[in-house]
Amino acid sequence: MKVVKFGGSSLASGAQVEKVFHIVASDPERKIVVVSAPGKRYSDDIKVTDLLISCAEHYLNGEDASELVETIIGRYKSIADELNLSNNIIEKITDDLLSLLNGDKDNPASFIEAVKASGEDNNAKLIAAVFNHKGLETHYVSPKEAGLLVSNEPGNAQVLPESYERLYELKKQSGIIVFPGFFGYNTEGDVVTFSRSGSDITGSILANGIKADLYENFTDVDAVYAVNPNIVKNPKEIRELTYREMRELSYCGFSVFHDEALIPAFRAGIPVNVKNTNNPEAPGTLIMSARENINGPVVGIASDDKFCSIYVGKYMMNKEIGFGRKILLILEEFGLSFEHIPSGIDDITIIVRQNQMDEEIEKSIVKRIIDDLDADEVRVEHDLALIMLVGEGMRQKVGTAARASNALAAANINIEMINQGSSETSMMFGVKDAVEKKAVQALYEEFFAEVKVR
Amino acid sequence: MKVVKFGGSSLASGAQVEKVFHIVASDPERKIVVVSAPGKRYSDDIKVTDLLISCAEHYLNGEDASELVETIIGRYKSIADELNLSNNIIEKITDDLLSLLNGDKDNPASFIEAVKASGEDNNAKLIAAVFNHKGLETHYVSPKEAGLLVSNEPGNAQVLPESYERLYELKKQSGIIVFPGFFGYNTEGDVVTFSRSGSDITGSILANGIKADLYENFTDVDAVYAVNPNIVKNPKEIRELTYREMRELSYCGFSVFHDEALIPAFRAGIPVNVKNTNNPEAPGTLIMSARENINGPVVGIASDDKFCSIYVGKYMMNKEIGFGRKILLILEEFGLSFEHIPSGIDDITIIVRQNQMDEEIEKSIVKRIIDDLDADEVRVEHDLALIMLVGEGMRQKVGTAARASNALAAANINIEMINQGSSETSMMFGVKDAVEKKAVQALYEEFFAEVKVR
Repeated sequence: MKVVKFGGSSLASGAQVEKVFHIVASDPERKIVVVSAPGKRYSDDIKVTDLLISCAEHYLNGEDASELVETIIGRYKSIADELNLSNNIIEKITDDLLSLLNGDKDNPASFIEAVKASGEDNNAKLIAAVFNHKGLETHYVSPKEAGLLVSNEPGNAQVLPESYERLYELKKQSGIIVFPGFFGYNTEGDVVTFSRSGSDITGSILANGIKADLYENFTDVDAVYAVNPNIVKNPKEIRELTYREMRELSYCGFSVFHDEALIPAFRAGIPVNVKNTNNPEAPGTLIMSARENINGPVVGIASDDKFCSIYVGKYMMNKEIGFGRKILLILEEFGLSFEHIPSGIDDITIIVRQNQMDEEIEKSIVKRIIDDLDADEVRVEHDLALIMLVGEGMRQKVGTAARASNALAAANINIEMINQGSSETSMMFGVKDAVEKKAVQALYEEFFAEVKVR
Repeated sequence: MKVVKFGGSSLASGAQVEKVFHIVASDPERKIVVVSAPGKRYSDDIKVTDLLISCAEHYLNGEDASELVETIIGRYKSIADELNLSNNIIEKITDDLLSLLNGDKDNPASFIEAVKASGEDNNAKLIAAVFNHKGLETHYVSPKEAGLLVSNEPGNAQVLPESYERLYELKKQSGIIVFPGFFGYNTEGDVVTFSRSGSDITGSILANGIKADLYENFTDVDAVYAVNPNIVKNPKEIRELTYREMRELSYCGFSVFHDEALIPAFRAGIPVNVKNTNNPEAPGTLIMSARENINGPVVGIASDDKFCSIYVGKYMMNKEIGFGRKILLILEEFGLSFEHIPSGIDDITIIVRQNQMDEEIEKSIVKRIIDDLDADEVRVEHDLALIMLVGEGMRQKVGTAARASNALAAANINIEMINQGSSETSMMFGVKDAVEKKAVQALYEEFFAEVKVR
């Protein structure tokens, strides 16, 4: 049994929904279909969810929103018309949206949540109607009915553990289930939405709930690429990836999958297949607990810029108990969170994201560290990029660090920092922002170029 | 003006003291001479300090110690006889020692301190007598007279800041000053000794006090070697070394200089010259604030074994605030101190010295981390060696990491860990204990073999 999730671009038009239908109909294992709200049809298009937020704000301010409502309904209607559906379903959707918009506004945040979530909810009703119209027994199931209970944190809802047992009951339902993504209900019965990529989270929760054999996540790319295509042209596709590798890659900017969404699937050990709605024959990328190590030591290269390092040197630092803790306390007082704290004997370096400090905060922090901790030297270095070489079992492979540092040296790139061995699945290099692309290209060339024998 | 310190082996016999005299007499800048107690003349010999401790314990237990006293006095007497001194000085030393041993024992710890320190104190009197006998105006100066005040921590005395101003007055004294190493006086007027290498500390304090141009530290080796001579035969000598480089080397087992002893000299920016009493013409090793970078990126390679790593993995760890702090708290509860805490995205590794944990403690710690922190995986890896490549400015040099990791790969050595960039002056590699020597040899070959062009 599979859970299949379709993103907004896969459901943006009748033609796209047609593809979705064929994908679902072609495999009887595809039991539960999680849908987003209709997304962009072209790059300047506006997502239904964004239209809904704007609409809710108009209503809260007592402004006229009839044009917005018309545009939203128009999106559903164009899909229904393209697929020759009767107008019944559009009337139902219109009624639902208008009664929501005219409903209780005592709690504005709660009102916005419900209007926002209606994009997914009504789209699920529409898709269920499409599937039935095309002769496939399909049932729209609401998260309330299914018992998807979440914490009361708008925009960051967390699934409540008791949900899983109830969701397991979905297995017993006949036909296909279409389930709206992005939201659940709190114990008061109010809509609460997940964080970004919320439909991915819903799919992951359902996959866990019904103990699916596979969670298929359909987007608009053939696979996860081994490196950012904006840095390397036509990069290799990744066939298999472990959850941990995915996490390491997404830390440094890989955005195919929001890592939080993977947790429920990860906890249940359910493999996740990232696939392309527009090319469903392509095998996509399979994310799972363990993979055969067939692609050499490195499976992907990620990078992110705009880090900075705060270097603190003090003679005999390592004999001074609590020195590190005191530095972290100062950062905490300034509200800074740190990424890494590599330490030497008489040195400690704190890597932070640069956007947390303006010039003034930076000056104050340096002053505090010098004054309070009697440090010999404090120096802030800006514009660092972190590059992650990711690959399960990389540590056990003699020479991986040598290959990587050689490739960087050959490209005349100075390595500001190496962090290897703390993670089982990655090796981190710090370089200057200015040479980030060059460094990634050199590493890609070293580990992925076809000419190399592996 | 120079402060010159001689260790126990440089003062173990008349022949050695003769060498010391010539070294001091040959340079009028050598104003203050700090002396240890007579050391070993041959490998089975017993140091005077050890005889004194045994002697004090006999007296405290009311046991006969006449043979020990005779042996101690015999050591001074043999030096005096060898150098044709009259018996006056030996009588003075004997009186001093006996009155100490027969003195107040109300505070046994204080009694032992005073007896222990008499080894240096009486040797200083003897050396001053030798120098005067040989026609050099020389004055024994006691730490009490000079105002060397210390905290009341027996065996770990810390100099009190007000001492420096008083010690500055020593500059005004005519002739040579011979000053006993190893101890000072607390504000009550009692003897309190420094930690191990205590005479090095006295020399360093005096160099700071009189604002010396140079602190010469005479031992029995020509220089600090670039690598442990037990691992690499006839290693290169280090000509120049910064304080920080010395610290990094001594962290991983370089024992020429006890790092704490360097602090007063370091604070005053006074260069320290490690020289050989038996070969004073050799330039030795100069330790200072900054050096010309003339020897390639690496100045020395140190290594130490018997570390272990505690690896903790948890999916989404880096989103969990305070995770690292909680782990450190658990270690603290078990009384463990850690060396490094390299962190990945979802992993943190804690490097500790192995001798802190037996099997039972290890099991309990692993259990606590799993139970309290809900970690996915905790794994302890034993028998790690840390290798430090040390060299000021190493970070700025493209390709140093590549050269090092290549050398290790060529020797088929797997790198368990790399920590580069946290320290300005070193790069740390973790390897298995079993390959430590092989790894150090490969790195030495890479960075120090003559055939390589630099």
